[in-house]
Amino acid sequence: MSETNEAVVIRGGKDLPGFHKVLGYEQVSWDEDVAVISVELQPHHLNLAGVIHGGVLTSLLDIALAQAGTYCPYPGRMRKAITLSLTTTFTGQCSGGVITVTGQKRAGGTRIFNSSGEVRDAEGNLLAMGEGTFRVRSGSESPEGVPV
Amino acid sequence: MSETNEAVVIRGGKDLPGFHKVLGYEQVSWDEDVAVISVELQPHHLNLAGVIHGGVLTSLLDIALAQAGTYCPYPGRMRKAITLSLTTTFTGQCSGGVITVTGQKRAGGTRIFNSSGEVRDAEGNLLAMGEGTFRVRSGSESPEGVPV
Amino acid sequence: MSETNEAVVIRGGKDLPGFHKVLGYEQVSWDEDVAVISVELQPHHLNLAGVIHGGVLTSLLDIALAQAGTYCPYPGRMRKAITLSLTTTFTGQCSGGVITVTGQKRAGGTRIFNSSGEVRDAEGNLLAMGEGTFRVRSGSESPEGVPV
Amino acid sequence: MSETNEAVVIRGGKDLPGFHKVLGYEQVSWDEDVAVISVELQPHHLNLAGVIHGGVLTSLLDIALAQAGTYCPYPGRMRKAITLSLTTTFTGQCSGGVITVTGQKRAGGTRIFNSSGEVRDAEGNLLAMGEGTFRVRSGSESPEGVPV
Repeated sequence: MSETNEAVVIRGGKDLPGFHKVLGYEQVSWDEDVAVISVELQPHHLNLAGVIHGGVLTSLLDIALAQAGTYCPYPGRMRKAITLSLTTTFTGQCSGGVITVTGQKRAGGTRIFNSSGEVRDAEGNLLAMGEGTFRVRSGSESPEGVPV
Repeated sequence: MSETNEAVVIRGGKDLPGFHKVLGYEQVSWDEDVAVISVELQPHHLNLAGVIHGGVLTSLLDIALAQAGTYCPYPGRMRKAITLSLTTTFTGQCSGGVITVTGQKRAGGTRIFNSSGEVRDAEGNLLAMGEGTFRVRSGSESPEGVPV
Repeated sequence: MSETNEAVVIRGGKDLPGFHKVLGYEQVSWDEDVAVISVELQPHHLNLAGVIHGGVLTSLLDIALAQAGTYCPYPGRMRKAITLSLTTTFTGQCSGGVITVTGQKRAGGTRIFNSSGEVRDAEGNLLAMGEGTFRVRSGSESPEGVPV
Repeated sequence: MSETNEAVVIRGGKDLPGFHKVLGYEQVSWDEDVAVISVELQPHHLNLAGVIHGGVLTSLLDIALAQAGTYCPYPGRMRKAITLSLTTTFTGQCSGGVITVTGQKRAGGTRIFNSSGEVRDAEGNLLAMGEGTFRVRSGSESPEGVPV
């Protein structure tokens, strides 16, 4: 969990289109079996009560848990997976600051893998935890992956 | 599942701040134990592969399942709940058009309730299904709810 | 959901070894995409409070949801799947009588399928609902399946 | 995670009635926020393929996760909780030997708590992981609990 390489930088959510840009996450680290992303909360991440929306927590867990099983060390290449199921347990709330999401691959073979992870606020309080099952897309089974 | 009242109109996501506005849903209907919302997919709802991001599906299920257990018939008032756990099974993909999310309360007492629901694309294909457990917030136990 | 054939009769839990015998379920019906089993509750199905143990509910949902995606119309043959993930929401309790578990396949391709289902007591009250994701075992992709 | 006291001994599944006796677990340890149980697999824990039935894994996770949030240090007394939701991700298989189930309380207040946990075989391989949300029963909010 040390160096960030180019591939990691490229895939920080802020530089990506679509829903990734909405979430606006930074890639803290990404290594074999472990991925960490962080988000500085903005008003558009909050719900009507002014705290982080549960959907932001599930979305970020989905991303970090998928990343944990699809590390690709080669710049300009990536590995892809689709989520089969995702479960989230909500354990806390926060209304601002930087939250950190950690995903860890827990098991898996060539095509299916399982991850778990958690979201913590800036003080380290647990906001949510989750588990997911993923299917590796064709072409993404080996570390070489496919072009970005 | 018939009339839309003022409370329903007020709470369509497009007119709300924060993450609700990002999701941009319309309130199709909202009655005792059943809520329906819809979203016309925009580029910011998609993932890197150009299909709806899993986090959009989980977020919309969270909202419709919570609504199913917090119907409030009085304009200008609402009932609030927090999500304890949410699980989503992903069953399909789509890249555009209007998707519809239905939440149904399945059981529950004064403080805790359970809902299930599904997301379908414009052709009726199942995109995701989910289950959630919710806790009613203080003051929201009765149909009168609290001021918006 | 009509006729019971020999394959169905053979696979009622009472006639099977191992944990299936412990659960002691009857096969009410088993057709393409839908399976129904029932259990007459015995003291060994209960918890310390004298009501059905949560583990009995999850176990029965696991079986009915897997069956829903592995119907095999040929006597003496069967199709096999393994559970990737299972979630259960507990909505009620009961201490005796016959409970009925229904599993329905909701989506899926050749190798992965998704089911949802529910457990009801003799009066029709909802005791639990659940969702599962399953992987079809090699040789079980087609309706012909493999020898029992 | 050190001493076993009388309350712990009393509640090992082998000495309990009902479904607890079927599961036949030993209480390895039980302390504030962490519980560990183990089972020496018997033929009645297996499925038709001769490996541990998924329902055994979900049942044991249900017990260990509930215990993690209901530790009671007073002999002859206990604290009770009911499971609201439980999710299990299945990651491995085994056909015999002693399996160990660890439950850890992750968050929670007076009435609701959340746990996660895992099941490992005798070689330490991960068989399953899970998350649960529980409601503490009336009278069980404080460490004193209620009489067994």
